[in-house]
Amino acid sequence: MSSSVDKSVREKCISILREKFSEIVKRIVEGKRPVLVMPKRVLTNTIYDEKNKLLLLGPEMQRRSFLDVNESRKFMQTLLMASIIYDALANDEYPTIRDLYYRGKHTITYRDLHGRIHRENTWDEQRESDSVIRDLEVYLGLLREELLILSKEKGKVVGNLVIKSGDDVIDLSRMGHGAYAIEPTPDLIEFVDVDAEYVLVVEKDAVFQQLHRYGFWKKHKAILVTSAGQPDRATRRFVRRLNEELKLPVYILTDSDPYGFYIYSVFKIGSITLSYESTRLAVPSAKFIGVMMTDVFGDEAFRKLARKANLKNVFKDAINKLPQKKPYLSESERKNYVIKAKPKDVERAVELVGYSLALACLEDREIKSKIRKKEGLTGYPWFHTPEWMRELCIFFNTLSKLEIEAMASKGLRFLADKYIPEKIETHDYID
Amino acid sequence: MSSSVDKSVREKCISILREKFSEIVKRIVEGKRPVLVMPKRVLTNTIYDEKNKLLLLGPEMQRRSFLDVNESRKFMQTLLMASIIYDALANDEYPTIRDLYYRGKHTITYRDLHGRIHRENTWDEQRESDSVIRDLEVYLGLLREELLILSKEKGKVVGNLVIKSGDDVIDLSRMGHGAYAIEPTPDLIEFVDVDAEYVLVVEKDAVFQQLHRYGFWKKHKAILVTSAGQPDRATRRFVRRLNEELKLPVYILTDSDPYGFYIYSVFKIGSITLSYESTRLAVPSAKFIGVMMTDVFGDEAFRKLARKANLKNVFKDAINKLPQKKPYLSESERKNYVIKAKPKDVERAVELVGYSLALACLEDREIKSKIRKKEGLTGYPWFHTPEWMRELCIFFNTLSKLEIEAMASKGLRFLADKYIPEKIETHDYID
Repeated sequence: MSSSVDKSVREKCISILREKFSEIVKRIVEGKRPVLVMPKRVLTNTIYDEKNKLLLLGPEMQRRSFLDVNESRKFMQTLLMASIIYDALANDEYPTIRDLYYRGKHTITYRDLHGRIHRENTWDEQRESDSVIRDLEVYLGLLREELLILSKEKGKVVGNLVIKSGDDVIDLSRMGHGAYAIEPTPDLIEFVDVDAEYVLVVEKDAVFQQLHRYGFWKKHKAILVTSAGQPDRATRRFVRRLNEELKLPVYILTDSDPYGFYIYSVFKIGSITLSYESTRLAVPSAKFIGVMMTDVFGDEAFRKLARKANLKNVFKDAINKLPQKKPYLSESERKNYVIKAKPKDVERAVELVGYSLALACLEDREIKSKIRKKEGLTGYPWFHTPEWMRELCIFFNTLSKLEIEAMASKGLRFLADKYIPEKIETHDYID
Repeated sequence: MSSSVDKSVREKCISILREKFSEIVKRIVEGKRPVLVMPKRVLTNTIYDEKNKLLLLGPEMQRRSFLDVNESRKFMQTLLMASIIYDALANDEYPTIRDLYYRGKHTITYRDLHGRIHRENTWDEQRESDSVIRDLEVYLGLLREELLILSKEKGKVVGNLVIKSGDDVIDLSRMGHGAYAIEPTPDLIEFVDVDAEYVLVVEKDAVFQQLHRYGFWKKHKAILVTSAGQPDRATRRFVRRLNEELKLPVYILTDSDPYGFYIYSVFKIGSITLSYESTRLAVPSAKFIGVMMTDVFGDEAFRKLARKANLKNVFKDAINKLPQKKPYLSESERKNYVIKAKPKDVERAVELVGYSLALACLEDREIKSKIRKKEGLTGYPWFHTPEWMRELCIFFNTLSKLEIEAMASKGLRFLADKYIPEKIETHDYID
């Protein structure tokens, strides 16, 4: 009952697995030690490629030898997982990462040189088996989605786009009030026809529902996507393909808080855990249209602050290069809409941009003393731009955040027909 | 750009709002005190209707008078919210409950009899405005979905079902590898054509993906739905309509743990907060096909336990009436698949079935002493059946749980072609 698309994928993957692992068989037959060689998947081997704006895996390689007692466990785990995935492919199965964990989980009983009996689990937690799956992705040069490993999916899409998925042709402009839930294997989607000018990715499902129902995508010729929170891999890959293959610019709309900023960063640059996949998942040209802290507060107060003696140098570029900004909210709207930042928001902001900016802009003494302990956290280099420093400075200074819903509550017409299109037209976004 | 369906809904709702609130205007014109009368939405006015297997709102009514200082705040909140919703309907808006909160949030400044100035917020937290929306649903006899108030939606569906949503006709058997994301206003869906024998609701999105991809719904003529965790209102209403209007039996598949059991209970009986909507959201005939604790452990050990002197009476019915059950898992599978219950699972189980069953079946002394403090928690009456007492007794006794994924890891073929259909055919479920 599987689709014909899946059948051909299975054949392709089976032959890649055979080929890659026959090397090991060959070594054994030749009397050599069985060894796996693959790129090192660790933080120290993760590089930020500033030119291409991507998090990438560095050049370091690692060897895993079966006959090295420190490496044999990992070696065996890798082979165990590869064989389970191979079996699943051959048997028309569609495992999830959770059930791959279960499929491989068992206890091995063995006798050591002194005759003592030992018991060892293949893996104890899913964290361990997930890491082995990532190793295999790197080793095989295949994403787990290509190996027909499925997962929970949250992404949805509507717009003037016709796709082929499985054996069906689906018109994403004919979804009624509902939407199309993106498949877990977006590489198997074929783009049949498109009539759109850009992709708008909305963090929040509820706002996606509002814009969809309002007819935003029809009126503004957009493909409307929601990641429903932190984007999963399939949503990221789908958006990447829209950008790469259909040449559609991508705009991201999130809450105005450090979590929203980070969601944007994951779409654009990639994430550290999945750095080996950034070249296929990230959209380096993605633009953050908002909600920006400057959309809420403007930047007048920031300019005053940034001229203080101790901040002058830090914000020289922001003051000189960035055009002045007026807020979209009146003072009374701001008063009703803005939410107080939580300690977790502050922590996340420090992760993004580092502790020194936080210390410079914060006025709250209690929080300041907590952040002193974060010394060493220097933040992500891609947040050290004048634009982001201004945004995060306002965040630290006001300790405020704002949800997209607040913009919608000024009227859906305001959000859909003024805020979003105006920001895109006037290039009032962060690149 | 809104659909024609939405336009006629707006007109209908506007006239209901006008009619209901013109009563108040009339009273004012006549020089009477403005008063709202509506059913009391509190726990003590929530009734379990055993015959119809539904949680319902009882007969108690509440009055809210504008001129009573204890009631005027609530009275004004209700009128404020009604006017915001009215405006939204009239202006082609699609608010969410979050943005209704923002739309109404402001500070009222007033002077008391002594000339002192006071400030009061219309509402402080969304909890407050949400409660007002629920009051309005009861007062108007309209669900918020009918008032075109949107929300985040997680539910998805595939199967041999053709629907009309908005202005589009959508064939849910032609979704490729993706799925149809259910709209937030499922009452506006029109069922055009159906060719299915039952509805299978799967708690977990990842398992839904697996069964979908495997072609389960084609092979077994099912409509496949996922609630992606705790079901939202739209998914419940959609499933209810499939059951009521298309006469399709509904089977629920969740993890084997107290959270899974509770998800089933929400689908079947309703929830306390939304008891006023059970008659439209609940599916009293829904059946829990699993994963049952007896599917994992069988019931032999339970029978031994239940014959102990102190338990004989409690489990008389379970022992005499319920057929013996063999487990679906071998001992070694059980060993690899079963997870240790967490304290939160135990707490939830006590909520479901009460502390006395927990004390009777538990062997872990530490947990037992914690539960002694829960004295008074008697559980929900609909869990006090022989079937559920057996399930929960095994849970307390083994302190174990099992995920659906574990069943899938025995092979998707096992889950899709044996476990699910066999349980349905042999009526091996809890009603």
